[in-house]
Parts: sequence; structure tokens; C-alpha cells
Amino acid sequence: MSVTLPKGFVAAGVAAGLKSSGKPDVAVVVNQGPGMSAAAVFTSNRVQAAPVKWSRQVTADGQVQAVVLNSGGANACTGSPGFEDAAATAAHAAELLRLPADNVAVCSTGLIGIRLPMPELLTGVEAAVGELSAEGGASAARAIMTTDSVPKEAGATRDGWSVGGMAKGAGMLAPGLATMLVVLTTDADVEPAALDRALRAATRVTFDRADSDGCMSTNDTVVVLASGASGIRPSDDELAAALTEVSADLARQLIHDAEGAHHDIAIEVVGAATEADAETVGREIARSNLFKCAVFGNDPNWGRVLSAIGVTDAEFDPDLLDVSFNGVMVCRGGQIGEDRSLVDLGPRDVHVLVDLHAGDATATILTNDLTYDYVRENAEYSS
Amino acid sequence: MSVTLPKGFVAAGVAAGLKSSGKPDVAVVVNQGPGMSAAAVFTSNRVQAAPVKWSRQVTADGQVQAVVLNSGGANACTGSPGFEDAAATAAHAAELLRLPADNVAVCSTGLIGIRLPMPELLTGVEAAVGELSAEGGASAARAIMTTDSVPKEAGATRDGWSVGGMAKGAGMLAPGLATMLVVLTTDADVEPAALDRALRAATRVTFDRADSDGCMSTNDTVVVLASGASGIRPSDDELAAALTEVSADLARQLIHDAEGAHHDIAIEVVGAATEADAETVGREIARSNLFKCAVFGNDPNWGRVLSAIGVTDAEFDPDLLDVSFNGVMVCRGGQIGEDRSLVDLGPRDVHVLVDLHAGDATATILTNDLTYDYVRENAEYSS
Repeated sequence: MSVTLPKGFVAAGVAAGLKSSGKPDVAVVVNQGPGMSAAAVFTSNRVQAAPVKWSRQVTADGQVQAVVLNSGGANACTGSPGFEDAAATAAHAAELLRLPADNVAVCSTGLIGIRLPMPELLTGVEAAVGELSAEGGASAARAIMTTDSVPKEAGATRDGWSVGGMAKGAGMLAPGLATMLVVLTTDADVEPAALDRALRAATRVTFDRADSDGCMSTNDTVVVLASGASGIRPSDDELAAALTEVSADLARQLIHDAEGAHHDIAIEVVGAATEADAETVGREIARSNLFKCAVFGNDPNWGRVLSAIGVTDAEFDPDLLDVSFNGVMVCRGGQIGEDRSLVDLGPRDVHVLVDLHAGDATATILTNDLTYDYVRENAEYSS
Repeated sequence: MSVTLPKGFVAAGVAAGLKSSGKPDVAVVVNQGPGMSAAAVFTSNRVQAAPVKWSRQVTADGQVQAVVLNSGGANACTGSPGFEDAAATAAHAAELLRLPADNVAVCSTGLIGIRLPMPELLTGVEAAVGELSAEGGASAARAIMTTDSVPKEAGATRDGWSVGGMAKGAGMLAPGLATMLVVLTTDADVEPAALDRALRAATRVTFDRADSDGCMSTNDTVVVLASGASGIRPSDDELAAALTEVSADLARQLIHDAEGAHHDIAIEVVGAATEADAETVGREIARSNLFKCAVFGNDPNWGRVLSAIGVTDAEFDPDLLDVSFNGVMVCRGGQIGEDRSLVDLGPRDVHVLVDLHAGDATATILTNDLTYDYVRENAEYSS
């Protein structure tokens, strides 16, 4: 259950000295083919880290054979010297792997605004390339951790082919300043265009809807590599379903390990006029600090949910809104519903159900509560 | 320096038993004329409390002679019974004051989703009307406090006329779930239309730009009453300047007393292509929990400022952005600038200066840091 689950992939993770803790900080994932289709989605933040700029270029032609990832430094806000560092990293890995440099993507995570220690990084790339193996997925997943407490890996096995993946971070793709990096792999035989469609279908309803703290990183990247080694060509729907399954699993792991969180909150919006409305409403609730503090305090505070809904432009009538916490409809028709003391917010998982009574569309946003530990981690950790 | 500073106003605040603490919770402000011009701005939240619906109606004709305010209950999400309660409150005050009910505005703050205890409230209105005096401004200001630690009053004196005001809450007008209520008074002789223009000019650059936690209340109201008792008719600009002075003073007091805040942060955005761009950028920074936690941790984290700027659609080039904390330009041209250790974030007041280098427009947003105390207050206080 890792990036090396599908056939045709090798990986490794090593400690190169980028982290002062001495923990693993450089990972390499290589697609040995025969195919080399790839697709990627990147942060929509307009302040983009050097590795994002580099990787956007090299994935544009739909062909990537290796990904180099490092923790211990984001290489963001580092100007053209930083871009040259990203390019040099790719070139060094390409030389070692006998690939064209423009088939090597680069991902970085860590502090913003400092240059990467290039000698250590390049030595680390050499060490990782030397340790590449078909059992290396777990060590690669460990090497990309920053404030993560556990590595995140997932996989989905189909009849003769599979999808694997690893992730780090606590945020959303196009959010999550605790940068989210994801590498997905598959041995399906797939053209770049189809892979791109499947990736976008998967991320749209998984990583894009995991919003721990509403903050968008400069480095977020999800890249998928397809080796074709299974010789099996799934349909678009089959491929999208498998990528979605692995992405959803990783997204849940990210939310579950979010910085300082005590509750994992699924905000399910139903009865929306459009899916966009459902998503907007879910996101606005997920960004309400008052709501998030209330959940931390085990308080099913539906007034704060209604207040958040009210700032959106979604279609709804305030007098028709229903809100349930963990199955108890504490707000019915925009007014007091069931007794809020019936709600048990003791468990880690919290389900907030909002019915807009304006249509049939739905969306679910995953988020976390706002806790003392979130404040502590983000007041003390410089990113 | 209160709502009774201008000539023609009386006020009072009493304890009516709406708050379990027994503290003052009902206030009445009366304009004794000869003029009765009024204007108001309300929360833009689409989930609006009953008193907002009522007061929007009665201020529409530009004439208000009295405002009844209560803490201890927001009368929000209470349906048509709640609206009838607001109307009954106005009618009762009107009867006692021998005014038409539609010349009485009502403002409420406190818990959402519970009905007001009407017998206590109406008795409180009677008591407050009985205590009305030209020295009653301070007692009125105290009666509208909720989580406020101090009452907020302000005044501006001109040649022969003046503006007074009181406020409660910790948030922004069209934000601030800790509902913001503001009553401004003036003895200037002014037509309703001119008063409305001056009020909007004042709130746009003061209360509208004080954003403690990005959460928009269902009850926020700013109402201004003009008695004309000075016999002086200031120009539009003079009136707007005086209202702005008092509003800015009250907005600073609100931010300074915001729930759990340890720092008062002024985010000044300069070099913007438009004032809207400057405001958007300032607001996005003010809504970044990572930025707010960093300030709490005395960390001049310019990377989090850039990340927040990057999610806006404002006009800028990432490689031209400058960011200063308390006078030290820690980010110059989108990259590392002065040594961040030169920044002292020990004082309560923090000034963040962002230069977009895209034009000449500016805006300043006031906000707070995100602290353990914010989480504690909002996890434990049900609103």
C-alpha cells in the first residue's frame, strides 16, 4: 500500500541532513515504464514555489519518469536562484537515472524564504537513487514528513492493476500552508490526457475538499505517474474511481493528522441548487473559527453554522435551513430544533449535515476543529 | 464622550435580568429633537436577526427617535415569534415615550436561537425610560456589553456641535459574530439623505475594515441619530469627518478588546492598483490563521503573508512584493529582506506594511492575533 504497490515503480527515502533532527528528508520515486504518462495539479496560489514552477513545466507534456521530493525546506520565495536550485536537483537526479532532466519533477516542503542546502540535497539524491527498490515506498513516505505525526500511504488493487500513493501535510490542495505533497502511481496503461482527466476528477472531490485551516500553500502538488506495466488499460471511469479511492483515503489521513486537531469534521451539504453552492457553503462553515472553536468545546453550535451559511451567495431561504450534528437535528427550518444536549461530540469524528432545501446537489468538505494545540504548533513552528 | 455628548439626547442602562450575571442588560437612547433624522447600516449576513429586520424597516424612512438595545439574547434564528418580540419591544418603548412605534429601532446581542424573556425585557425598558438622562450615556454603554471587558464610548467636538457614540462587540460590521452594535449621535442639523451618506463614508473605512476573526454576525448594526439641537448644519465633508473620527475611535476600541487577543494588528496595504485590491489583500491576510498564530508567537512570518496575498485576485507581481513588520522590511521583492530577528513583536501594536507595487491605492485593515485565549473564549462561550 504505497507508491511501489503498482508494478514498474521503485522508490527510496534517505536522511540527507536538510532537517536538523537528522530524520529522513529526501525521497525519490522512479517510474521504470514501459509507459511514462504523467499528470499533475498544483496549488492555485499565485505565489508559487520554485519546485512548483519547475514541475509545472516538466509535466506539461504529460511525461514524467521520476519525482524528487524533499522536506526540510520549501524553496519558496527564493527568486531565480531558487528556481535554478530546483532545476539543478532535477538535472542531478536525471543524470544519475539516465533520464532527460525535463522528465524529472521536483517537490519541496518546509520553511519558506530560505535557500536549500544544495550540497546536502544533491548528496541525498545520490544516496536515494542508490537505494531505490520496489519495497521503498514506505521509506519514501517517511522522508517527506514535516509536522506529520505518521506517514500517509494508500493503495487500491483492481483485477491485474493497481494504484498506490503517498502524501504529507495537513491542509488542502490549494490550501494548506502545511504544504500538501502527493505522489500517486499506477501500473495501468493510460495516455497522458486520460490520466489528467482521471486525476482532476479524483482531486476535485477529495484533496480539493479537505480544508483543515483555509490556508493555501505555495507548494501544494499532486502528481500521478503511470507505468503501464500491468498491460491493462482501464476505462476512464475505472481509472478515475481507483484514483479517487486512493486520494480519498489519503485526504482522510491528512485531515486526521492535521496540526493540533482534536476532531475530524465532515461537513455534508445537501439540498443545494448546484454542486458549487454545496461546496461554497461547506467551505465557508469550514473557515469559521467560531464554528471550529465550538466543535473543540464539544458545542453543537448551529447558530455559528447559520451565520457562516449567511455570508455565502448560495441559493437558500434562511427559514428553511436544517442543521444536524452527529444525527441530531438541532436546527430545523432556521430555528431551534432538537435539544442540543442530545448531541454527543465526544468522538473524534463529527458529522455536520446541512440541508439547504434548494435542490438536489451535494458536497462534503473535510475539516478540523480549532484548538489550543493548533495555535501552539503554528505560533511556534515557522513555515 | 458618549451618546449623550451631543445636545438633545438622553440615555439610560439598567439591569433587567436578561443576563444571569445580574449585570446591566437593557439600554435606551432617545433623540429629543427637534430633528429626528436617522441612518443605519446592518450586517450583510443573509441570516438576519429579528431586530435587524425590524430596525431595517423603521430606519428606511430616515426617521428614528429612540433605540432600545439589549444584551443577554440575540433574538436571532427565532422565526416570526422573534420578529413579534422585536416589534413588541419597540411598541412598548414607543408607548412609554409617546412616539410612533415605527420611530423606534431595536438592537439585540447575546445567544442565538433562543427567545428573549419578554416580561423581563419590557419591565427593563420601563425602568430604563424612567432613568433617562443627559448623563446616561455611560450607563447605556455598559448595558450593551457581552464578552466586552470594558464599555466603549467616543466623541468628537466641533465648533458648536458634536458627535457621540458607543459600541459593543469584538468583530467587524458585517463580520464579528461577537455582534457589533454601535449607536452614534449628533446634534448637527442634517437631512436623512446627507446623514446616510456621511454614515456610509465613515463605516466604510472604519468598522468595515476592523476584522477580528472574519466571522460575520447576524445582528451587527450601526445606527446614527441627529437631533439638530445645535442649530448648526455642517457640510457633508465636515459631518463625514466627524462621524469617521468617532467611528475610527470605536473601531480601535473594539479591536483592542477583541476576544482573547494579545496583539492589535494594523495591516496597511499600499501600492495597490485599486482601493478594492488593497482591501482584499488586507482582508485575506487578516483571515489567515497561520499569520495570526505567527503574530501571537512574535514571529514576523512574511511567508504566511505572501501565501495569503497569493490567493487573492488583486493586481501584483509576486517578485515585487515588499512586506515590513514594525518598520523592518523582512521581505523585499518577494524574497528574503532584512534579518527577521530585527523585528520586535513584543508590543501589543503590530504594523504590517505590504507594498504591492501596482499602483497608488491604499487601505488599512485592523485585526488581532489568534491565541489560546481566543480558542478558550469561543470554545466555552455559546453564542
